[in-house]
Amino acid sequence: MSGSAESVLKRCERLGRVSEEPDRLVRRYATPAMREANELVGGWMRDAGLAVREDAAGNLIGRRDGPGKTLVLGSHLDTVIDAGRYDGPLGVLAAIAVIERFWDRALPFAVEIIGFADEEGVRYPTSFLGSSAVAGRFASGWLSLEDEHGVSMAEALRAFGGDPGSIASAARRPQDLLAYCELHIEQGPELERRGAPVGVVTTITGQTHAEVCFRGEAGHAGTVPMNARRDALAAAAEWMLAAEAVARRRQGTVATVGRIWVEPGARNVIPGKARMTLDVRHTSNAVRREAIADLRAEAQRIAAAREIELVWEARGETAAVPTSPDLADRLADAIEATGHPPERLASGAGHDAVLMAEVAEIAMLFVRCERGVSHNPAESVSAADVAVALDVLERFVGALA
Amino acid sequence: MSGSAESVLKRCERLGRVSEEPDRLVRRYATPAMREANELVGGWMRDAGLAVREDAAGNLIGRRDGPGKTLVLGSHLDTVIDAGRYDGPLGVLAAIAVIERFWDRALPFAVEIIGFADEEGVRYPTSFLGSSAVAGRFASGWLSLEDEHGVSMAEALRAFGGDPGSIASAARRPQDLLAYCELHIEQGPELERRGAPVGVVTTITGQTHAEVCFRGEAGHAGTVPMNARRDALAAAAEWMLAAEAVARRRQGTVATVGRIWVEPGARNVIPGKARMTLDVRHTSNAVRREAIADLRAEAQRIAAAREIELVWEARGETAAVPTSPDLADRLADAIEATGHPPERLASGAGHDAVLMAEVAEIAMLFVRCERGVSHNPAESVSAADVAVALDVLERFVGALA
Repeated sequence: MSGSAESVLKRCERLGRVSEEPDRLVRRYATPAMREANELVGGWMRDAGLAVREDAAGNLIGRRDGPGKTLVLGSHLDTVIDAGRYDGPLGVLAAIAVIERFWDRALPFAVEIIGFADEEGVRYPTSFLGSSAVAGRFASGWLSLEDEHGVSMAEALRAFGGDPGSIASAARRPQDLLAYCELHIEQGPELERRGAPVGVVTTITGQTHAEVCFRGEAGHAGTVPMNARRDALAAAAEWMLAAEAVARRRQGTVATVGRIWVEPGARNVIPGKARMTLDVRHTSNAVRREAIADLRAEAQRIAAAREIELVWEARGETAAVPTSPDLADRLADAIEATGHPPERLASGAGHDAVLMAEVAEIAMLFVRCERGVSHNPAESVSAADVAVALDVLERFVGALA
Repeated sequence: MSGSAESVLKRCERLGRVSEEPDRLVRRYATPAMREANELVGGWMRDAGLAVREDAAGNLIGRRDGPGKTLVLGSHLDTVIDAGRYDGPLGVLAAIAVIERFWDRALPFAVEIIGFADEEGVRYPTSFLGSSAVAGRFASGWLSLEDEHGVSMAEALRAFGGDPGSIASAARRPQDLLAYCELHIEQGPELERRGAPVGVVTTITGQTHAEVCFRGEAGHAGTVPMNARRDALAAAAEWMLAAEAVARRRQGTVATVGRIWVEPGARNVIPGKARMTLDVRHTSNAVRREAIADLRAEAQRIAAAREIELVWEARGETAAVPTSPDLADRLADAIEATGHPPERLASGAGHDAVLMAEVAEIAMLFVRCERGVSHNPAESVSAADVAVALDVLERFVGALA
């Protein structure tokens, strides 16, 4: 069953037991669990005839030599806290299975499979560490970031067996790379809605992050009349509803308030301060920026009407990244050749492909996942869909030859 | 300056330095800081000629003997975290000052001044411990409640010098009590708005507490379209706004959401769960219950429209407590005799008087406080207003004789 969907799912299941914690899946950057994952997956790479190494940032790389440029396949091996088994690992293990299928066939290029060491950014307050290193976009300051136990990234990486002094050596040159193709679960409900097992990613959406804080005045919940209040949480509530309305109004926009902190935070005290995270995404940079402008205007209007102070702190922005139209067409052709509709869709989530776009033409193949659930142990894909995805990826690689 | 407003404010200032922490005022039940406070205030009571003792619950009691029943004056000596100096202590220290003024005058009743050991309920998850003991309403189960360090109330009380086995002995019999009169800062802006130094409390408002939880579905902030979301925080936002509107619609109602918890609570995850505290108050029990019914109906409507589960947990209800009309008239007469308007107002906050109403006719005199600020180091009263309050209380006690 080498190279089959069943073997891939069996390996996902096996790898899903490699965790920092006994009762849930957590595998963060440069942890002993990640070391164990690299050993396990590295072994499977060797079984597939690949030469295995790790780069200075801890990325696991399996290489099949060949003439000319290198086709890179892969995804990440780290996970969120209480993760599912497929977000990341499926892309790495599927790539290994596809290369297994080519064991007796020559290819006019080299192939490398990369298991990126960090995409989720759970241990340190930055994400895409692994692909940033490969793309030459690893910021030197990151090495001094500390995890929750005060362990710096440099220390952690050294203990892991990486080399913080040589991160630059992990960077790849664009002229050496043929393309980067990543297989990943969709993490959304769109393919399921369309009834398609796989889909071609057209664009990875851009994101704007901000922290939005309303500062009113704390007061006694029993003694301050409603019309004398400057309730920061009430202002936040009004704005969160407005944010939802703004996003609904602009087709394809998603806006999320995922965290909120209230001070003083007691049952009998009117909130004096309410702080929230904001995450806004759209495939069009222009639409996303218009949505942000609307959201900010709404916040200003609400703050003014309630005589409350607004503090809006930008927390970063990433532009939308289109995939290569040529590679997307090739993936679509491969899908049609397997007898399925060549569905195209945008990715609402960020991926290692965003960074890899700095050094290569990129392509992404999405696999349908049940109810769009991800970042959750209930994450699920079907063997039939994975089988289609493997066939598509095999045809794609074959056609590149 | 014995018995003067200046001496009272000086003592408030002195007592305000007795804290569990060096940089802010925190004085919780049965702590070393509360021990120090009882010693300090007990000394002032002795200086005023009172016989000082502590009851089994740790309440500080200074007694001036006399024939017949006992007039009880007092308030609480514990504080919230990062408290002001006046909420509680002003009532105890003003009572001492007033009794100082009677040093050479006979009274046809005994007087006791009680410094209640816990009103705020900060250390243990229950409030009014001190007055509950005096009112015979101390629930035996409370003794096994634990503080944040796992210290049970029984252990804490024993270490403090109280007697958890004899709490019942702290209870007073109604037939022994002439009345209970409490002086307290208003903790609201009403007297300031009316331009009056003091006011007579007509009713202590009733309160309903609840925990309101919306359960939707967590999801990826980038991949789940707006129309496919079941965002628990968005539902909570809609309901918080509705709660504000309901309270505004019903004159005199206050509704407060003071705390909110969101799960999973990550920037890039749609909230699956949002839980809030609700605190609703009104002087009319009927209006308060109507408001609660409206708020619950709004929550049900919002949950249904968003296909989200609603869990509404009642967390207790206290009925509105009217003060004695006869005693209120006597306080009003005393105010008029000092040349001030006999303003009457409701108390939005709970007070030891609520418990004392179980065993005595109660009266409350409010003192204007700056901008209605309380539970805050900025809490402030003027010496002139305190002088009026002392004169009023002196006249009130004199008239009872």
